[in-house]
Amino acid sequence: MSQFDHVAVSKKANVYFDGKCVSHTVQFADGTKKSVGVILPANLTFNTGAPEIMETVAGRCRYRLQGEDWKTCGVGEQFSVPGNSQFDIEVAGEPYHYVCHFA
Amino acid sequence: MSQFDHVAVSKKANVYFDGKCVSHTVQFADGTKKSVGVILPANLTFNTGAPEIMETVAGRCRYRLQGEDWKTCGVGEQFSVPGNSQFDIEVAGEPYHYVCHFA
Repeated sequence: MSQFDHVAVSKKANVYFDGKCVSHTVQFADGTKKSVGVILPANLTFNTGAPEIMETVAGRCRYRLQGEDWKTCGVGEQFSVPGNSQFDIEVAGEPYHYVCHFA
Repeated sequence: MSQFDHVAVSKKANVYFDGKCVSHTVQFADGTKKSVGVILPANLTFNTGAPEIMETVAGRCRYRLQGEDWKTCGVGEQFSVPGNSQFDIEVAGEPYHYVCHFA
């Protein structure tokens, strides 16, 4: 499934880290939200409020949860990040396209 | 209206100019498409296939259509670009958030 159907999408993007990460917010009929975004080649650290699941749409990344080792996440894979936490993400070469699911 | 309702949105972004422009495609129930995107501070030249209308959602840009002078487009304003043409766009300071309507 290459798209989300029957949703609302924000016209204004979320721009983080001087544009190294750009996403748009998607809202579903049941009120839940996700974001569709891109991370350009960079090494970034994100803080989480709510728990979230990062799903790779295209490209790949390396990521490190707090207290864990670096792992890789490719297309069709995902990783979960606890709430009130943070994770490091490394994107090299091609842009990393993702869907972020909020738990 | 800060969002498009009852649409489909692509999970994968369109990434142009090494990420200086990132957009997601939005499809409406009638089959028409728009894109919601961001241009980071840069001077870029875009080529058009179909005619398009660029609408400013946040920030501002300067633009120049072929054979015309530079003009400014701020929030709530828009400009039309003919098909099979090109335009220069200059974004300085803050990211430029836009909706691109395809005619």
